Amino acid sequence: MRLIEAATPALVLDRGKLRRNCERMLAKARSLGVGLRPHMKTLKSIDAARIAIDPSHGGIAVSTLKEASYFADYGIADLQYAVCITPDKLPQAAAIAAHALGFSAFIDSVEMARALADYPRIAAWIEIDSGEHRTGLAPDDDRLIHIAAILKSAGVPLAGVATHGGHSYGERTPEGIAAVAEQERLAVVSAAERLRAAGFAVPGVSAGSTPTSVHRASADGLTELRAGVYMAGDLFQSGIASLAEDEIAVSVLASVIAHKPERNQIVVDAGGLALSKDRSTAALADGDLGFGLVLDINGEASLGRLTVDGVSQEHGEIRGAAPLPFERLPIGARVRILTNHVCMTAAIHDRYLVVDGGEEIVEVWDKLIGW
Amino acid sequence: MRLIEAATPALVLDRGKLRRNCERMLAKARSLGVGLRPHMKTLKSIDAARIAIDPSHGGIAVSTLKEASYFADYGIADLQYAVCITPDKLPQAAAIAAHALGFSAFIDSVEMARALADYPRIAAWIEIDSGEHRTGLAPDDDRLIHIAAILKSAGVPLAGVATHGGHSYGERTPEGIAAVAEQERLAVVSAAERLRAAGFAVPGVSAGSTPTSVHRASADGLTELRAGVYMAGDLFQSGIASLAEDEIAVSVLASVIAHKPERNQIVVDAGGLALSKDRSTAALADGDLGFGLVLDINGEASLGRLTVDGVSQEHGEIRGAAPLPFERLPIGARVRILTNHVCMTAAIHDRYLVVDGGEEIVEVWDKLIGW
Repeated sequence: MRLIEAATPALVLDRGKLRRNCERMLAKARSLGVGLRPHMKTLKSIDAARIAIDPSHGGIAVSTLKEASYFADYGIADLQYAVCITPDKLPQAAAIAAHALGFSAFIDSVEMARALADYPRIAAWIEIDSGEHRTGLAPDDDRLIHIAAILKSAGVPLAGVATHGGHSYGERTPEGIAAVAEQERLAVVSAAERLRAAGFAVPGVSAGSTPTSVHRASADGLTELRAGVYMAGDLFQSGIASLAEDEIAVSVLASVIAHKPERNQIVVDAGGLALSKDRSTAALADGDLGFGLVLDINGEASLGRLTVDGVSQEHGEIRGAAPLPFERLPIGARVRILTNHVCMTAAIHDRYLVVDGGEEIVEVWDKLIGW
Repeated sequence: MRLIEAATPALVLDRGKLRRNCERMLAKARSLGVGLRPHMKTLKSIDAARIAIDPSHGGIAVSTLKEASYFADYGIADLQYAVCITPDKLPQAAAIAAHALGFSAFIDSVEMARALADYPRIAAWIEIDSGEHRTGLAPDDDRLIHIAAILKSAGVPLAGVATHGGHSYGERTPEGIAAVAEQERLAVVSAAERLRAAGFAVPGVSAGSTPTSVHRASADGLTELRAGVYMAGDLFQSGIASLAEDEIAVSVLASVIAHKPERNQIVVDAGGLALSKDRSTAALADGDLGFGLVLDINGEASLGRLTVDGVSQEHGEIRGAAPLPFERLPIGARVRILTNHVCMTAAIHDRYLVVDGGEEIVEVWDKLIGW
């Protein structure tokens, strides 16, 4: 089957690009002397995880317990729930931990350290705030030692310390991102050193985001990089030089549903749901690509710099400065649209139409959706 | 079971509010002397459709063929696919039409009128552009008569003419919205009159959006109002007076996952996916509510005007001007969050936890997700 025969809208994944993106990040981790923990919150697919997993590490990160349960069912040996866990989630997490080989979760509070005492199969990562100011403790926070002591006395394994330099998304240059990567490293390594100085074993020292992992110069003191978006890539990531635009592996297949030459407009059947309403490229100096960049059915940039400039639920509106290629895109024609933030785009789709260059569908991969 | 025991994030629907919102819109249609065709693209649930359907009309609108197939399976007698259909969708549409009592689809081109010739069970609505400038023909477009003639000679039933005044979302006052409602009416009625003058029967004259349906003064010449968001409501709709904030029927249940008193911040486990990244209230003069307004577990506004001011995939950040109620919202506490655009929010969730005031779950309704 070919993309021209597939129902639209649909999510397309280029397997060759995915493989190369995964190989590149794994090579980066190797060159820095650390392991790679792929974050599967973006692609939510066992097929993608099998390509992404670092064979010398074996673990992944997830953002929901549904993901944890799904990947545990496939025997993934080391599952890190990389969001601060709450008391009500502990029974479900414990059930996953009971049949997974290794399950760990983030915490950043004394309350949750105490709550874990009843669930000794769930290992704890103490989350460190390296500057994102979302969750996590500052590396010099007094509670760091207190939490480790509570865990130790309760017999809860300390998996390590972990941080996410999400503020790297606010940087626009490789140098700025590299500086955040160094903030990440110093914050989490100093937290590990404080804990070790206080007598605690700290096996894992985990840091990451895609931009900081790409632009990181040193991983000294880290045990693993943790990143997810790099596998697929998206327009925001290419806008901040995490990868090249033609390395983006995931696109949305759409059909042309209307021509409006009187206002130089083409309408497609991928709107705010299929593409997502993420507008992160609007923050890039020269890189605002609306709701997505329109490629041809083969995923090639042969249509010029066409963008989806407006969306409603199931409609996307392409409006051009230059005359649009109406003859190349008759009603029913297919296009592939790169989007701003692939985590948001992929989340609502329940499968990937897998290609390997071109438009021949070589596989269909299921993926998780929802909670 | 109660909301305090439910896994988060989750979608909550208040059945009493839904019923009252549906009754109010039905009363509006009655007062104008027309039928009501609920658009099920928002709630995507048979249980909601059964409450919303106008018994004197019987029909619904849908935005995807998956919705059409789902509602056809439940025996809904009149299904209007309210998006311009394309050649590749016709076989699937015809299969739905073959076992549905009535299936119709929008078209706005000569090409699609010709393509329908092979599918005489699919009735056609000619879409009219009443000013939104998305899809549809201007009421005075020459192709209107041409399309009707092609349909007639091919034996394809003409369901009627239909328009969507989506530009009502750009208005901020009841008067401005009422003016768009009148534009909708005049455009679609004049198109119907042109067709009738040319000898074509035009059974249906359909117009709608939630704002124009609420603020419409006249439906003369229309046969039906078509709207969807009104059933649930959202913060944008309350911001433009489509309904009151305390009439909004759908919210997102979330758990507090972290406290950051040092920067007056509470983090919850509903982020850009569970809430959506829609920021439509940013366009309201005094009504920017970030990514959502935070209510207590009973859906009451007892926490002050707390808003979710930042989101990442699975994190929502509440930051207050006034000191946040940390003691009322310990880690694990539940809140319910009203969102900007319920169509975007509901789409990624696969069920409703149904309450009827308070936090007792009285039913769980399945809903559609994806394509």
